[in-house]
Amino acid sequence: MKIISENRAFGGRQLVVTHGSAACDGEMTFGLYLPPQAEAGRVPVLWYLSGLTCTHENAMVKAGAQAWAAQAGIAVVFPDTSPRGEAADDAAFDLGRGAGFYVDATEAPWAAHFQMWTYVAQELPDLVFDQFPLDAARQAITGHSMGGHGALTLALSYPERFRSVSAFAPICNPTRSDWGRKQFAAYLGAEEGPWAAHDAVELIKARGLTLPLLVDQGGADKFLDLLQPQALEAALAGSAGVFRWQAGYDHSYFFVASFMQDHIAFHARALLA
Amino acid sequence: MKIISENRAFGGRQLVVTHGSAACDGEMTFGLYLPPQAEAGRVPVLWYLSGLTCTHENAMVKAGAQAWAAQAGIAVVFPDTSPRGEAADDAAFDLGRGAGFYVDATEAPWAAHFQMWTYVAQELPDLVFDQFPLDAARQAITGHSMGGHGALTLALSYPERFRSVSAFAPICNPTRSDWGRKQFAAYLGAEEGPWAAHDAVELIKARGLTLPLLVDQGGADKFLDLLQPQALEAALAGSAGVFRWQAGYDHSYFFVASFMQDHIAFHARALLA
Repeated sequence: MKIISENRAFGGRQLVVTHGSAACDGEMTFGLYLPPQAEAGRVPVLWYLSGLTCTHENAMVKAGAQAWAAQAGIAVVFPDTSPRGEAADDAAFDLGRGAGFYVDATEAPWAAHFQMWTYVAQELPDLVFDQFPLDAARQAITGHSMGGHGALTLALSYPERFRSVSAFAPICNPTRSDWGRKQFAAYLGAEEGPWAAHDAVELIKARGLTLPLLVDQGGADKFLDLLQPQALEAALAGSAGVFRWQAGYDHSYFFVASFMQDHIAFHARALLA
Repeated sequence: MKIISENRAFGGRQLVVTHGSAACDGEMTFGLYLPPQAEAGRVPVLWYLSGLTCTHENAMVKAGAQAWAAQAGIAVVFPDTSPRGEAADDAAFDLGRGAGFYVDATEAPWAAHFQMWTYVAQELPDLVFDQFPLDAARQAITGHSMGGHGALTLALSYPERFRSVSAFAPICNPTRSDWGRKQFAAYLGAEEGPWAAHDAVELIKARGLTLPLLVDQGGADKFLDLLQPQALEAALAGSAGVFRWQAGYDHSYFFVASFMQDHIAFHARALLA
């Protein structure tokens, strides 16, 4: 593990770290924001999973999370969205590099490196809880778009691990969307049975919702057909999960930044209780 | 004038606008954040001048100004840092493209396009006050690094126009720095007499300080030799200007974002009084 950059930010430390990943068989990079409170002891942690084409860096510099995380005393981890070696090359923006979809690929050529589920659910937590003053008993998770999909599916799969989950414009129902079917076929194979374990709507239908959930979706988002928010809204009916339409907002980081304070406050209520 | 992008942000509108510039003899681009209050009438405006290598976009997506501007009801204009045509080409990062230094060039080959003082002080204000619900009687100005130099020199030259001025790690004394002498020689010529009009320290010595001023400077900034903050600190001695050293902070946007709330609050006190 190597800290490749460090910037003081809002009284805390914004780190960028590289490390060898066994899961992805190569070097991976992540961002970690440690609030000022981390100087005095272990702090709760919010995972932020990013969307298509993003690296660890986009949300770290554009989502404005650090201001609110510093106030609340919460660390934020910004994992990358895929392996980055030559094996990640693909002509499409929505497959391969920058488009890991938070699954463990079983199909060639992806299986050798694209193990993003194991990376984000297991290997990276093991590393950061070992190396930094983070409290594994107080975790929450959020994400944007493809990262919202990752956040929802991880939290629904490990509800005992996360105290709360939120998402900004998540891909909600990937087994029924072109943001999902293409990638699941490539990474997981044509047999659709295993896909449902990576579909937030299917997981809620199968398991119910047992942790606090907040989703914001922009009403002017041009990707509504691909995100399928109505399917998630319907699946949440009668649950305690909160789904909000935000009129006029699009799919950009301006949307994410606009509601980041709300999301951090939502997670702080669960993490600091 | 053409609005080339619009994103809802913090209840307001983040615009990017292109227009033909007579001063720079070509097309120029700027960002404009209109807070929610601009729907109801003219709002005060904060000019944000960016640093070397930046376009209109860097601060717009990384400085986190919109959150606080929306709360205060203040618009923010993000001008570009130089003309962008072929005439702007130069091998150096600190001359030509992205490095206008907010002066009107008198020397070839720059004079034909590099009229950034006239552009920022005259042409762009004329445009935005004509086209958008901004209140010309309530203006403030800030900036980062080369943009801090621009903000300070504009405010000190037009103290009747600006109610307050601030800067993040500004180039303070460019007539005595390699971030200044090289560019002033290229843009303004070898005769040093006219340079002093574009040096904040020299302006304060010559004219005094007649408006509220706030400067933050990171203590771990690796460009201290080029920025010359001690010269500004000394020039401000005995004045009402506030110069703050921020221990541990570097020259990055993480530093700018960390103190943006303070700067917007500082300007809001002057603009909303």
